Amino acid sequence: MVINNKVSNVCAGGDGVADSEEICAAVASGLKLPMGPTSVLPSSTGVIGWRLPAKELSSEIVPKAITTLQKESALPAARAIMTTDRWPKIRSCVLPDGARIVGIAKGAGMIEPNMATMLSYIFTDATVTQDYLRQCLSEIVDESYNSISVDGDESTSDTVVCLASNKVPLSSTDEWKGALRQICQGLAADIVRNGEGTGHVMRVTISNYPGTNKDARRLGRRIVNSPLFKCAVQGNDPNTGRLAAAIGSFIGREDDNTISLSDVSLTLGGRKIFQSGKFILEGDAVERELSQHMKDAQFNEHEDFPRHQRFVDIGVDFGNSNGNKGKAVVFGSDLTAEYVAVNADYRS
Amino acid sequence: MVINNKVSNVCAGGDGVADSEEICAAVASGLKLPMGPTSVLPSSTGVIGWRLPAKELSSEIVPKAITTLQKESALPAARAIMTTDRWPKIRSCVLPDGARIVGIAKGAGMIEPNMATMLSYIFTDATVTQDYLRQCLSEIVDESYNSISVDGDESTSDTVVCLASNKVPLSSTDEWKGALRQICQGLAADIVRNGEGTGHVMRVTISNYPGTNKDARRLGRRIVNSPLFKCAVQGNDPNTGRLAAAIGSFIGREDDNTISLSDVSLTLGGRKIFQSGKFILEGDAVERELSQHMKDAQFNEHEDFPRHQRFVDIGVDFGNSNGNKGKAVVFGSDLTAEYVAVNADYRS
Repeated sequence: MVINNKVSNVCAGGDGVADSEEICAAVASGLKLPMGPTSVLPSSTGVIGWRLPAKELSSEIVPKAITTLQKESALPAARAIMTTDRWPKIRSCVLPDGARIVGIAKGAGMIEPNMATMLSYIFTDATVTQDYLRQCLSEIVDESYNSISVDGDESTSDTVVCLASNKVPLSSTDEWKGALRQICQGLAADIVRNGEGTGHVMRVTISNYPGTNKDARRLGRRIVNSPLFKCAVQGNDPNTGRLAAAIGSFIGREDDNTISLSDVSLTLGGRKIFQSGKFILEGDAVERELSQHMKDAQFNEHEDFPRHQRFVDIGVDFGNSNGNKGKAVVFGSDLTAEYVAVNADYRS
Repeated sequence: MVINNKVSNVCAGGDGVADSEEICAAVASGLKLPMGPTSVLPSSTGVIGWRLPAKELSSEIVPKAITTLQKESALPAARAIMTTDRWPKIRSCVLPDGARIVGIAKGAGMIEPNMATMLSYIFTDATVTQDYLRQCLSEIVDESYNSISVDGDESTSDTVVCLASNKVPLSSTDEWKGALRQICQGLAADIVRNGEGTGHVMRVTISNYPGTNKDARRLGRRIVNSPLFKCAVQGNDPNTGRLAAAIGSFIGREDDNTISLSDVSLTLGGRKIFQSGKFILEGDAVERELSQHMKDAQFNEHEDFPRHQRFVDIGVDFGNSNGNKGKAVVFGSDLTAEYVAVNADYRS
């Protein structure tokens, strides 16, 4: 794999595919790998619309990078792929039978993965078939990377790669799959924790949605992408009206008249705030309690890596009277002045 | 009409309809109007989820308000309905045959009207039938209020009302309709100019879209609602990659494979920046020119009301080789630290 940052190699004036192939060829040549399309996997992240300096990368950077290869730790790689990321994102797991999974990820803005700037690479020495790995990864990507959002802006080139060296036989593929899920969900939440300007991470749990899990995930994303609700979270303001408005706006656009608000209940920090079509908000004490839940989940600006893993917890339950079963857990970021500053000055 | 701010009377613990009827009855009684559902039209704007103090409004505020009624100017009304608005929004037009149209509006955040906190009231003394007025207003609302966005958050209670006193006969209804369109489009753009924290207004013109005008409007809204592009505009950064990414993300979600990128051209400030599937960006001089276009459209923080009416002008043309005809002009706001501050502290 060869990964560059700064320039995303997307739709530039030149031929982005040829540029990328030139760099892959330089890597294959330097590492004495077979030339051809399956030896080296390229990724690029950075400014969209600029041309990749393929000649300079191939002749200067790639040979230098090859002389510094090491096998002690994936942390230098996790650091090297950072752009506006504040900390490296790395997760690992050792299974009882000795097999390991190590994953790294980068991404802090333009985060609304639909597997289309987020990059994530997972490595395992376990013995798994390609088909089984693909099936597990596809299912788990939906429950992890595809369930997060920093700003609702889809990137042009989100990437998740999982490589298996097949060195360690597995006694249980289920255990391995569980570990893969844990790593992917951990890295996905890390991306939100490390989002551009992120001050709080929201965790929205949708239950009994009258539709598919994918529909439930769309609703979860609608909530974590509401600019007004994001700002309220930033201010530790339990503005439950904005939460309900985001849900109502989503439902109002669905062509589904079977969704009844009378069955919907909402919780914030585990406390019920809406039921039977009405808010249940009794006085200032409840407001203070809800606001304290949000303050507890706020990051201290000077907190170091790794950051705490607390959430602003939002629950939306549609009731199961109609046999509804759609569910999703979606992670999102609040909206801060820092996000605006980072993205107003990104290229300067 | 009776309009209150501070509390939006939406889905409160009590009976919002009864509260509103109590206030309307107090207005009808005070003005000696016939009691009943057609005499007084109520509007409420403010925090969602709080209960309206109907008793205090009916017994104290309404009688006081009635003693201050005047017929000189609509400006005090335009000021009185302001919430986070920085300036009153008022537009008027006198037709050659003497008929007048006067409109006022309020709204600065939660602005993505889908005629669902924006309020706008238009008054005319022209003689027009109810059917014709409704037909004109419905068509023009799509081309004005429904074509703006500050933050992509739909309000629970956007309202546009047009009242005609039928005092002045019209020599041309077309002229009247044109004046109504001008007032509505002017007020709609004023709402964006006065949006919470707005530093620039974007004007996105979509031409030859392979779909309906409504589809074209959805694309326009997608562009002005991209947090990353909004931040770039705030920083006067001609980050054309983010613009293209927002368009690509929209097209990618449409189930329409007939949209060909090779026919699409993009302009910024009138200069072509993308054509035949590739960016046309030649060097720093062009970047400086594009950035200057954005700086020219930026509001001076200390500029008084009324503000200048310049735009960051974005054109998206899908080419008319397929007989495409969808078109829309959408107005949107950039995203600033001030927007975040206003909405993090809204209720405190």
